[in-house]
Amino acid sequence: MTADRDFGEREGEVAIGLPDKTDAGVYFIGRIGTPWRERSECPKNAAESDAVCTIALDERYSPGLKDLETCSHVIVLYFMDRAPRNLVVQVPRHYGEPRGVFALRSPARPNPIALSVAELIAIEGNIVRVRGLDCLDGTPLLDLKPYFASTDSRPDARVGWRERSSGDGRE
Amino acid sequence: MTADRDFGEREGEVAIGLPDKTDAGVYFIGRIGTPWRERSECPKNAAESDAVCTIALDERYSPGLKDLETCSHVIVLYFMDRAPRNLVVQVPRHYGEPRGVFALRSPARPNPIALSVAELIAIEGNIVRVRGLDCLDGTPLLDLKPYFASTDSRPDARVGWRERSSGDGRE
Repeated sequence: MTADRDFGEREGEVAIGLPDKTDAGVYFIGRIGTPWRERSECPKNAAESDAVCTIALDERYSPGLKDLETCSHVIVLYFMDRAPRNLVVQVPRHYGEPRGVFALRSPARPNPIALSVAELIAIEGNIVRVRGLDCLDGTPLLDLKPYFASTDSRPDARVGWRERSSGDGRE
Repeated sequence: MTADRDFGEREGEVAIGLPDKTDAGVYFIGRIGTPWRERSECPKNAAESDAVCTIALDERYSPGLKDLETCSHVIVLYFMDRAPRNLVVQVPRHYGEPRGVFALRSPARPNPIALSVAELIAIEGNIVRVRGLDCLDGTPLLDLKPYFASTDSRPDARVGWRERSSGDGRE
């Protein structure tokens, strides 16, 4: 795996030794098409862009899209395969303070699975158009799920460390 | 992989051939402790139970918990390693109608990565106590993330097919 050049070890960061082997495998079930070719071009978070992105699901999985068109929002899981996985404490670029990886949405994490809640625009064949992604063009897709407001929406949720900063710790 | 006995192929279900190989590996970074030892005991969804569950993170990742205590809610990603991965159209037990896997929250999916939004109760060392999980005792943990209301909360989201049913299609 090639580490993303946007990540180096900054002062205050903590790198660990990872286990020798992974425990399970995942399939890349499609690719996400976005306007962004480099990390520096990506919006800081999804709320910053109105761009319509295109999720191309591999044909074999297409029957799984049935009924998804009745959903207003989808949860998109994808694999950030260019980030290092061993930095458990990181200094996000715009904050300058070390934070635990599990308190950040950084792509650099032991399992670089990212999650975005996207607005569903249209489904045509194996192509799903959504608004609300912020990842690189060509990012591998892991899953799509319906978003249930009853269990997934917590409008009053708070992130204490963030109230003294800005952004969501993606970088 | 042993398929969960709760899943069989029912009439109307569609099974596909999966690729010969997975594309990337994931680490099980901890285990989730819950009161439920069999799927039939699990709450239908997290909103149905107030049980406090215990996430035991492997020690090597513990420094990554720094600052998480300032979050009111966490996103928990875990691996449903007992479900079959090849059923792209499923007939959930209580609905009787075939639905696409990407319109369901069923644990049986090409990448059996489940997502729950949980209320953070306490962190002590490498143990994270939360309310709002519904998985089996011993489920492997993949990730913890802070929940940002600004990007993760969509109180008006709708799931059309669900408005004529009940539950969220987990089974």
